[in-house]
Amino acid sequence: MNLQNKLLSVTKRQRATPYSRRVEAAGVKAYSVYNHMLLPALYRTVEEDYWHLCEHVQVWDVAAERQVEVVGPDAAKLVQLMTPRDLSKTALLQGKYAPICDAQGHILNDPIVIKLAEDRWWISLADSDIKFFAKGLAQGYGMDVNVFEPDVSPLAVQGPKAEELCARVFGEEVRSIKFFHGKMLSWNGEEIYVARSGWSHQGGFEIYLHKGELGEALWDELFEKGEDLDVGPGSPHGTERLEACLLSYGSDMNEHETPFECGLDSYLNLDAQVDSLSLPALRELAGKQTKKLMGVLFDEPVDVSDNFNIQGGYDLIVDGVVVGEARSQTWSFRYKKYMMYAMFDLSYIRANDVITVNGQDGSIHPLSLFKAALEGH
Amino acid sequence: MNLQNKLLSVTKRQRATPYSRRVEAAGVKAYSVYNHMLLPALYRTVEEDYWHLCEHVQVWDVAAERQVEVVGPDAAKLVQLMTPRDLSKTALLQGKYAPICDAQGHILNDPIVIKLAEDRWWISLADSDIKFFAKGLAQGYGMDVNVFEPDVSPLAVQGPKAEELCARVFGEEVRSIKFFHGKMLSWNGEEIYVARSGWSHQGGFEIYLHKGELGEALWDELFEKGEDLDVGPGSPHGTERLEACLLSYGSDMNEHETPFECGLDSYLNLDAQVDSLSLPALRELAGKQTKKLMGVLFDEPVDVSDNFNIQGGYDLIVDGVVVGEARSQTWSFRYKKYMMYAMFDLSYIRANDVITVNGQDGSIHPLSLFKAALEGH
Repeated sequence: MNLQNKLLSVTKRQRATPYSRRVEAAGVKAYSVYNHMLLPALYRTVEEDYWHLCEHVQVWDVAAERQVEVVGPDAAKLVQLMTPRDLSKTALLQGKYAPICDAQGHILNDPIVIKLAEDRWWISLADSDIKFFAKGLAQGYGMDVNVFEPDVSPLAVQGPKAEELCARVFGEEVRSIKFFHGKMLSWNGEEIYVARSGWSHQGGFEIYLHKGELGEALWDELFEKGEDLDVGPGSPHGTERLEACLLSYGSDMNEHETPFECGLDSYLNLDAQVDSLSLPALRELAGKQTKKLMGVLFDEPVDVSDNFNIQGGYDLIVDGVVVGEARSQTWSFRYKKYMMYAMFDLSYIRANDVITVNGQDGSIHPLSLFKAALEGH
Repeated sequence: MNLQNKLLSVTKRQRATPYSRRVEAAGVKAYSVYNHMLLPALYRTVEEDYWHLCEHVQVWDVAAERQVEVVGPDAAKLVQLMTPRDLSKTALLQGKYAPICDAQGHILNDPIVIKLAEDRWWISLADSDIKFFAKGLAQGYGMDVNVFEPDVSPLAVQGPKAEELCARVFGEEVRSIKFFHGKMLSWNGEEIYVARSGWSHQGGFEIYLHKGELGEALWDELFEKGEDLDVGPGSPHGTERLEACLLSYGSDMNEHETPFECGLDSYLNLDAQVDSLSLPALRELAGKQTKKLMGVLFDEPVDVSDNFNIQGGYDLIVDGVVVGEARSQTWSFRYKKYMMYAMFDLSYIRANDVITVNGQDGSIHPLSLFKAALEGH
């Protein structure tokens, strides 16, 4: 089944963003829908968007990365409750990649959690309505906290020239921001949270604009000051992010799976003395998983679209037995390999490091070694 | 800003359904995304889809109406906690339209709540992740209940010939099902919940198929047995549902608004002696709203796309003052009127029953009288 080249039916239910008018004027061709919002997905061709991102600097409307603001005396307690990652040593204005898990240890989202103050946090979301989980928990536990979606619409500046462009707009101070840290920087009379982060490995920043009405002015200034840098519109890129081994919640992992299964072990603090909903279950589950997300590399594109399963995925089948499910997959323009993430039965990958799909062998790699394998090390 | 004719970027994050292969084979042209799932939106032209729905019978893949299953000794208590509608007199297998509201009285979703047993309920969702709210509440209150998304993928059969078609597939018993009630009916060795419901006013049923692997067999049987009825593929229709005065969560109302503001007063039981999170706030808010969702009728299409606001909507402006925001809008093929839902400042509609947009007068009607106005009564 090939789901390409379908139109998106747009109603108000797919919210536009403070940047949408500029995105449209820049010639966006395709959107994704993310947190009930329009997320631009394509401007030129997939390959042109790719090389431009890797060689120049792009401005991405990622307003769909909505924030859940948690504020009040119990804010830190509530945020910690939702993640098995120990947040107790989070620095002010630091962001931490922190899976949100329920009491069964299943992943409900994989956001960046940002500490704005001891009693004020943002959960910068992947695609699911975590504010409802936070609201339910706060209500049930009677916590003294306010949970809401603030008017914050991130704009990402990504690519090798991103630092130069951001320095021109926000000042030289951006250069000293460390990865996954941020600063409050002055722009247009506002103090704006700017972090060195973003869903690519080309380097860059995310600007957490907190006044939607300034969105077009911010977009325009980035384009004006970046003209000689060949600044262009862009969006999170399916090829670049697979090469960078970044995961997408909903595509590569879901609410039936645990951080162990998805290779997120290093973001769990099983021994932490913190009150987290999921830690008791995850301590029990440690070492007991029966499946694992892996990377697979083929020399040529492979087509699994005939193996559609009723869960909405595509099975990987060996000798008539389903041994895994394909997740994200795309051709690497840079490395000339077909990249696939797949959730494998552990029993298969313990016995095999190759899978044959449509007559073509694919080498199977742990996610931690995928990039090295891709680069041919 | 015109957001039409954009492509949808499809990844696994927009889940396919058990019917997707048949939907694709039937020539779907556009999708919406709803509860992280593909919701077909167009097969022929908008007008052809409309008249076919009104004259024949259509099969709709509405698997995206995901269910939240709440099961266990505290199930009824948890479901009641989430809605201000009194569910205490719900009959077995009855469905009730029941807004989900938080402790501030704001609407988080407007599902059909179905009582399958005293201790087993489905919340048949509009587009937001209410399972997280239910999970959070259950966890925080320490309720003895299990909350999950079951393998249930509704298929709707809608149109004037829907009853005949469903009787051919499920037996004559379907004819005696009352509106918003359902029966467990035998098909293919399974007992399936079939309700007289659906998001149109052309009559019909929703089949809550609980085994995805039977999806294509169900689809095929409906098309085989409906051939002489001119059965065709279809989808929830923006024009027909506005004529029927049905609301869409996320388009016509949102999480910042109350049932009073959205004309849902009749689904609240302010005097009920039930434990509902939102009832205390709603009792306080009764009669104090400052805005109201209304219907507007114009003789010709109007274009408000120049009035984009930063909340992702389109303002209605009179003498330079914003007096409301346009919500859903479309041309009525049947009544030759342009229909618009709009959230108005109460002060404006208390003083005016007409609004002029681009030189064209629109008559303003309460939603309860919108259909009569449309029909020219």
